[in-house]
Amino acid sequence: MPSHNRLLCLGSRPDGPLQTGDLVITDAPLPDLATGEVLVRNTWLSIDPSIRIRLGSTTPNGYLPPFEPGEPLVGLAIGVVERSENSDFAPGDIVSHMYGYRDYAVIGTDGSTIGGYGGLTSLDPEDLPLQWFLGPLGSSGLTAYAGLIAVADLQPGDTVWVSAAAGAVGSIAAQLAKQRGAVVIGSAGSAEKVDYLERTLGLDAAFDYHAGPITELLERAAPGGIDVYFDSVGSDHLAAALDNMRPGGRVAMCGALADYDNTTPSPGPSNLFQLVSKGVRIEGYRAGSFNHLAADMRSEIAGYLRDGRMKYSELVFHGLDEAPSALTAMLRGDNTGKTLCRLGE
Amino acid sequence: MPSHNRLLCLGSRPDGPLQTGDLVITDAPLPDLATGEVLVRNTWLSIDPSIRIRLGSTTPNGYLPPFEPGEPLVGLAIGVVERSENSDFAPGDIVSHMYGYRDYAVIGTDGSTIGGYGGLTSLDPEDLPLQWFLGPLGSSGLTAYAGLIAVADLQPGDTVWVSAAAGAVGSIAAQLAKQRGAVVIGSAGSAEKVDYLERTLGLDAAFDYHAGPITELLERAAPGGIDVYFDSVGSDHLAAALDNMRPGGRVAMCGALADYDNTTPSPGPSNLFQLVSKGVRIEGYRAGSFNHLAADMRSEIAGYLRDGRMKYSELVFHGLDEAPSALTAMLRGDNTGKTLCRLGE
Repeated sequence: MPSHNRLLCLGSRPDGPLQTGDLVITDAPLPDLATGEVLVRNTWLSIDPSIRIRLGSTTPNGYLPPFEPGEPLVGLAIGVVERSENSDFAPGDIVSHMYGYRDYAVIGTDGSTIGGYGGLTSLDPEDLPLQWFLGPLGSSGLTAYAGLIAVADLQPGDTVWVSAAAGAVGSIAAQLAKQRGAVVIGSAGSAEKVDYLERTLGLDAAFDYHAGPITELLERAAPGGIDVYFDSVGSDHLAAALDNMRPGGRVAMCGALADYDNTTPSPGPSNLFQLVSKGVRIEGYRAGSFNHLAADMRSEIAGYLRDGRMKYSELVFHGLDEAPSALTAMLRGDNTGKTLCRLGE
Repeated sequence: MPSHNRLLCLGSRPDGPLQTGDLVITDAPLPDLATGEVLVRNTWLSIDPSIRIRLGSTTPNGYLPPFEPGEPLVGLAIGVVERSENSDFAPGDIVSHMYGYRDYAVIGTDGSTIGGYGGLTSLDPEDLPLQWFLGPLGSSGLTAYAGLIAVADLQPGDTVWVSAAAGAVGSIAAQLAKQRGAVVIGSAGSAEKVDYLERTLGLDAAFDYHAGPITELLERAAPGGIDVYFDSVGSDHLAAALDNMRPGGRVAMCGALADYDNTTPSPGPSNLFQLVSKGVRIEGYRAGSFNHLAADMRSEIAGYLRDGRMKYSELVFHGLDEAPSALTAMLRGDNTGKTLCRLGE
């Protein structure tokens, strides 16, 4: 059993956008396993924007508490069981869990109590790439699937706008909506990404949100209005969605990228009265509340990926030393698709 | 048949709060009835806050267009058929319709095309006061009923906050929630109204929203948080609701009183991310989309009113000449319960 571990910790709170120097890697001894515990060697780390929320000094009401300086980060990860004092797990088992951002995770029987997308879970990847279970077949896929199907009640023929559509969640949401018979508009933050949305993902329309007032860009892309907005951005994006919403429209809100770097949250849309005038609803959610849909999600999305009807991109960093760069790159929007950090091998 | 009519018209657009001088009464001849038309002598006018929205130079996307200076106002009314060229209506019939703010209404077969709460409809008041069909058994009642039951999915044991709870809609919503087994907190804009909410309506708690930061006032009134917010105010009230919302909470939004006087809409709540962190939804609606619930609503609320379990107050003005004062008083919040204008007799 290895005696030594490395963990990525918050060094100092970011002031504005996260810098790699805000994070530090600390060494720590690996304790012996107690009864019920499992030692996992992490092989893949999921690099997700929501972690930014917990790097500030306060988190929104209802959310997990902030990380304290010096505290190890946590996040979704995949690894291999190296040792086990738990009869449910044996060495060699492939598992997913919430103790990422470290080389090894010692996971107790309370592993499942960490919030969000489940605790220690055995994986059977069959013929599929293991890291997909952090992306389109994992938390990213479930966020897209639950938001469209369960929250927004997507119907064939709906016109759907997906913001951050070149990202890990957005790219799956946009393609899933297409497969479900919707007309799909995607937006992203660069011409390259717009090109990706149009050519690689085959969306019906796409725009760069820097190219003008978002309300006008969206109106040009969807002249008849939209029925569903898949929102991971908030702020001016949400306001534009309401302006272009058809009566009876639905917003599935899974994040607020526009606000994660702000110490003081920016004001909300000034056009919320359109919820009344058009009978529109905004519903927030977290994927972790929809684990009962995970099997259906995996079955449907794995099918699309296997036969090539759904594309999936990855930006992969290597080794825990690169995890800070992975985080800052993802938060800057350098990625197309999922950002991952590969450990070992 | 009378040859002469009087109509309340927009004189000049209000700059800030509505003044009686912004409205003018104009005389007009009454035309002969064409085939299909009905002449109604109005007896009760419903004085509702939503009319303020159409007095500005623009209305929100999806809403009815602004009134133009010189244009007669419209609004819910009850009257008696005086003459009819329509086989569905006979002289003496009691009807409700959308052509209020005038002594007589000439209603064509397209009367039902005016948006909102239905067109020309026969009423059978039985033993109940006629004007209740503009209030607790009419549009106000349906707004309360649809918002709580259909939109917010009210459950027994829910803790519910009703803003503007001394008003026409809020007072019914608050009492209906009580009857349905909820714990109900009401807020209003004066100590007298708070007293009314506590003593007359028997709510579990009440506060004057001027008495401090609304988030703190609400937290004191509902220390365990709220499950449902019945919103006719928006703005700082909505932000306070989100701060105090329990996971899975619902907001039924039927209006935005805080904003009706503003030329430029105020920013929305800066804490919308709590929709995500707590899995909360905000749903806007108009009563007119829930006419299929009107019979159930009338049956349930008439029962409560008959046996005294629901209280109902009215502020009544007399004659079309007083309609401008009725409007300004209601918009200032002088009323407790429903504001009405009685014509004739």
